Amino acid sequence: MDAPFADADPVAAQSTPLRTDVLIIGAGPVGLFAAFEAGVIGLSCHIVDALKEVGGQCIELYPEKPIFDIPAVPVCTARELVERLMEQCRPFGFPIHLGQQVRSVTQRADDKRWTVVTDQGLEFDAAAILLSAGNGAFVPQRIALDEAPALEGRHVHYAVRQVAAFAGQNVIVAGGGDSALDWALALRKVARHVTLVHRRDAFRAAEATVQEVKRAAADGELDIVIGTLAALKAPGGALESVDIKQIGGAVTLPADHLIALYGLVADLGPIADWELDIRAGRVIVDTSGYESSRPGIFAVGDIAGYPNKQKLILSGFHEASLALRKAYGYAYPDKKRVHVHSSYDAKLSARILGTEAPSADLPER
Amino acid sequence: MDAPFADADPVAAQSTPLRTDVLIIGAGPVGLFAAFEAGVIGLSCHIVDALKEVGGQCIELYPEKPIFDIPAVPVCTARELVERLMEQCRPFGFPIHLGQQVRSVTQRADDKRWTVVTDQGLEFDAAAILLSAGNGAFVPQRIALDEAPALEGRHVHYAVRQVAAFAGQNVIVAGGGDSALDWALALRKVARHVTLVHRRDAFRAAEATVQEVKRAAADGELDIVIGTLAALKAPGGALESVDIKQIGGAVTLPADHLIALYGLVADLGPIADWELDIRAGRVIVDTSGYESSRPGIFAVGDIAGYPNKQKLILSGFHEASLALRKAYGYAYPDKKRVHVHSSYDAKLSARILGTEAPSADLPER
Repeated sequence: MDAPFADADPVAAQSTPLRTDVLIIGAGPVGLFAAFEAGVIGLSCHIVDALKEVGGQCIELYPEKPIFDIPAVPVCTARELVERLMEQCRPFGFPIHLGQQVRSVTQRADDKRWTVVTDQGLEFDAAAILLSAGNGAFVPQRIALDEAPALEGRHVHYAVRQVAAFAGQNVIVAGGGDSALDWALALRKVARHVTLVHRRDAFRAAEATVQEVKRAAADGELDIVIGTLAALKAPGGALESVDIKQIGGAVTLPADHLIALYGLVADLGPIADWELDIRAGRVIVDTSGYESSRPGIFAVGDIAGYPNKQKLILSGFHEASLALRKAYGYAYPDKKRVHVHSSYDAKLSARILGTEAPSADLPER
Repeated sequence: MDAPFADADPVAAQSTPLRTDVLIIGAGPVGLFAAFEAGVIGLSCHIVDALKEVGGQCIELYPEKPIFDIPAVPVCTARELVERLMEQCRPFGFPIHLGQQVRSVTQRADDKRWTVVTDQGLEFDAAAILLSAGNGAFVPQRIALDEAPALEGRHVHYAVRQVAAFAGQNVIVAGGGDSALDWALALRKVARHVTLVHRRDAFRAAEATVQEVKRAAADGELDIVIGTLAALKAPGGALESVDIKQIGGAVTLPADHLIALYGLVADLGPIADWELDIRAGRVIVDTSGYESSRPGIFAVGDIAGYPNKQKLILSGFHEASLALRKAYGYAYPDKKRVHVHSSYDAKLSARILGTEAPSADLPER
């Protein structure tokens, strides 16, 4: 997979909101095609996604699975689909900002434009918002214990940002995949002690990694404990120990830090707080423009809900195309958009085929 | 372009109506993808088209034009698009009946199934009808003179079926394209006299053909008259002469037959008589299932009309997918269709990839 076109500098961005016609939230297949369609009809856009690469659930959940129902593409893997869509939207050169989960969305009273801020501090100023966020942002699956949220970031972690923070500490790594095993191996070199906790005696990781973990355990470099997290003990606000439930028993492990690496789950997250009409996890839209209950915010693809909605990628393509045509009215309220078939649009053709310099009235790179 | 899967024998078909779940009318890109989707969800179908090859307006109007807005296909010609869609629907092997314009549609009172008859006498018995007929059937552009309809088939013709019928006759061939020139050249060998009538002194035909026509005219083998048809004279019900209007004048040509070869135009034709809600040439549908005002008849692609409708091929793909899921209820009212992503459907995967024999509960070839 190619690197995205550009990745904005969060610091520079913070001081200067990024102004755009449409902010596309979600860089899955539908979001990528939406960027292409935005370019076709003459809208500028930025794309943000919580993941670190483009492709959404296609790449996160089933990159090598064949897909048969993309029209005119008899068979392709999910990864190939995303590559094709990246190629398709590349001529417009719209920026894609990865690893950015959208936090807050507010509408200005005067000009009705939207201010959107991400968890990394990126700020956008957009005429319209297109939600193509699938089942929501992919975020780490969190620990389902009441004590966990208060300890998050200090003693409970869902990613390792700085290895040095764990130097000389008692660390529990929870999980059975590559990420958990790799970090258990890495941290054993700096931590006072590392325990790998997994619910069963089998790991979903590369065989070489599994062998290395077992060898390290045999050599006393780390412990493996089979069981599930049952309780976190932090009497003074700092984690002291973790209770592990086991088949026919329990064990308590002293711990300064608990790192849970259970993989990612899709979560609507902050979108649920945007005052949209949301039912059964779907943003309700009307099918004339796939606009939500808040004019100017559109929802397309799996996140959209309407009568007889089918979770087909091809439906998202259609929904995005109609939504953007309606969004055009928010970006350019005084301009009438004229429909031209892509075949007959000479400027578009030149841009895509690279036969002449981009025209000034197409969005700038 | 490959030959279609099968072309039914009209005589055999007449005595045995072809029973199918869905009759797809129109073999353009949307109709072809609809056939694929029918197969995916377990519906059988037949496709009919008035043209002699698949592809609809893509092939009829702009086969070599590049198309840029098919999702995940950054650029392809219209012909390539049709080839890709033919490849995609081929695993299901549904019959395509070409050169068949649908004439009558009637609904049975008892079981609400549809009887559909074509101009060539093919008869279908379908649970649902999917109209994917673009701007209508491509039919010959007819002469805009009041006297023409009564003479059609006897003295006024829009195609040459039997050269022998014109032996020893005075024939006017009207038109300036390849078809008109080719037939003028061919008929001069059997007719008493051939006059080629065209509105201007330039032809839209292969240069070699144009040169041959000019040479034949110079040699007195045929006449070329520049002008437009103004009136047909048929006092006793048989054509006697044709008035031609010319710049600054007029001429009357004796004629037994007038053959107008003006090319094809799209025409809703008999569809206009099916008691559907039609406005501005579009069949009005509701967007939850792209069903027309007559339950069981669906309209998708360019022929469909609804608020904010865009004439995008990709919209037709979505519309067909939803329409077929609703049509499923007419074919199998007692069965609940379960949505499975194409990636996870083992039978479908086997059928498309050819890795095992088609399963009995997929539609038969």
